[in-house]
Amino acid sequence: MGNAEVYLKLENFQLTGSFKVRGALNKLLTLSEAEKAMGVVAASSGNHGAGLAYGMNKLGIPGSVFVPQDASPSKLDLIRGYKVEVSHHGKDCVEAEAFARTYAAQYGMTYISPYNDPDVIAGQGTVGVELTEQLDQFDAIFIALGGGGLLSGVGRLLKSHNPEVEIVACSPENSAVMHHSINAGKILDMASLPTLSDGTTGGLEAGSMTFSLCRTLVDTSILVTEQEISEALIRFISEHHMLIEGAAAVPVAAFSQHMGAYKGKRIVLLICGANIDLQTLKTLL
Amino acid sequence: MGNAEVYLKLENFQLTGSFKVRGALNKLLTLSEAEKAMGVVAASSGNHGAGLAYGMNKLGIPGSVFVPQDASPSKLDLIRGYKVEVSHHGKDCVEAEAFARTYAAQYGMTYISPYNDPDVIAGQGTVGVELTEQLDQFDAIFIALGGGGLLSGVGRLLKSHNPEVEIVACSPENSAVMHHSINAGKILDMASLPTLSDGTTGGLEAGSMTFSLCRTLVDTSILVTEQEISEALIRFISEHHMLIEGAAAVPVAAFSQHMGAYKGKRIVLLICGANIDLQTLKTLL
Repeated sequence: MGNAEVYLKLENFQLTGSFKVRGALNKLLTLSEAEKAMGVVAASSGNHGAGLAYGMNKLGIPGSVFVPQDASPSKLDLIRGYKVEVSHHGKDCVEAEAFARTYAAQYGMTYISPYNDPDVIAGQGTVGVELTEQLDQFDAIFIALGGGGLLSGVGRLLKSHNPEVEIVACSPENSAVMHHSINAGKILDMASLPTLSDGTTGGLEAGSMTFSLCRTLVDTSILVTEQEISEALIRFISEHHMLIEGAAAVPVAAFSQHMGAYKGKRIVLLICGANIDLQTLKTLL
Repeated sequence: MGNAEVYLKLENFQLTGSFKVRGALNKLLTLSEAEKAMGVVAASSGNHGAGLAYGMNKLGIPGSVFVPQDASPSKLDLIRGYKVEVSHHGKDCVEAEAFARTYAAQYGMTYISPYNDPDVIAGQGTVGVELTEQLDQFDAIFIALGGGGLLSGVGRLLKSHNPEVEIVACSPENSAVMHHSINAGKILDMASLPTLSDGTTGGLEAGSMTFSLCRTLVDTSILVTEQEISEALIRFISEHHMLIEGAAAVPVAAFSQHMGAYKGKRIVLLICGANIDLQTLKTLL
């Protein structure tokens, strides 16, 4: 593509349809027996919730996933499919998360953040471990950037293996708090506009450890518009016959915009997940 | 699924997006040097045309693919993508095929049938070779039935390996000429109604060798409605995050209707291709 040798890392075929199960499962596996017995709590109506529910079901760990009142029924079904209790609390993700933290503290349970946790970050880093085994040296990797858990885990692993590898952060223009925070040199409190990349949206927790990691690891940071995400998504589905979610189309869109700069290079696009709502897909088509 | 152990053979990820490239390529590889030099001709606006074009491009064999005047632009682009000449002739597939045969005879070129050819059938049979290598003994395989090239090739290979394996033919009710021909004991001349399973439509050539093969090989023959194909297709896309075409959803629909009869059995569903038109997909969603 564009005279570059482009490889796709297909987390759309990962269990639960997204890389998030890696971090969630790694976190669950690091808990003590006492912590496991007390149970875990998360706030997520999306891939983190599904990944955690998968791990709880597999490891027999009790707990609850809290979702905001407006969470889509299809995503709730995904979580409930793993036989994990889902409760509605709060009018948005911020309120659901606040409730989940309070609930965890009150009942002595472990709250599991989707990105601000060293064990979750290390779990996402296993994508990088696999890449170093699957592919000889490559020049750059394009990774969708939201809270920064995936980029921190994968970037840290890859840079330790090859300090020359270029880490390209890819964010939707409509929701790019980490991108702007890196530029400002501090974590900003910014509102997000709606984006097709629902897997990367949300604010950045004050003091999140992913901020300093991303600040160090990111070599290039690219913003893409909703139009670019939509076009990349449709083109990908049409060419590769796989469904991918909006967040997975963000690196594809970013590379499409900048491929002129990567001629003759070996590139990886991290396709982070598949969980697109079929009604959203219909609208895009 | 339904207490059966169900495996999917994913020809949707095959080169050109369909199993048809296997038969086309095998046929091209059996041609003499003189035949290769004279070139080949086919009539197909679909997967056979794309498979053949792929092979012609790869092997440097000249020739033409003829399509009817109403062929969809997206399918033509797929064929032209392999740098093979495409010409419009005739108002439907029957007329395009008649023209292609005449043209081939006139110019001393080889006409390549999509199913009525022993080398094409043997090529499709390589799906069966792979299955015997990939999976220990299984009890039944569900295969979409159109002209019968795929079923003949795969069925013959599998029965020679294990005579007990049940070959389940799956046809859309709207276009089931082979199903009705087998029941009648002779090749019928029947009109087809429109079907989502465009990959299996079309009449059955008088004297086609696939008739006696299918008559011997088919153990069970199932018809599915358009509604059943549509539901199976949407459910498959939603659960597996892969695009499949209508013909690939036919065995999925057939198994869904009859899975009660396969409890405790090991089953293969042959997912024959991915080339669904995105406008068709939009309508289904």
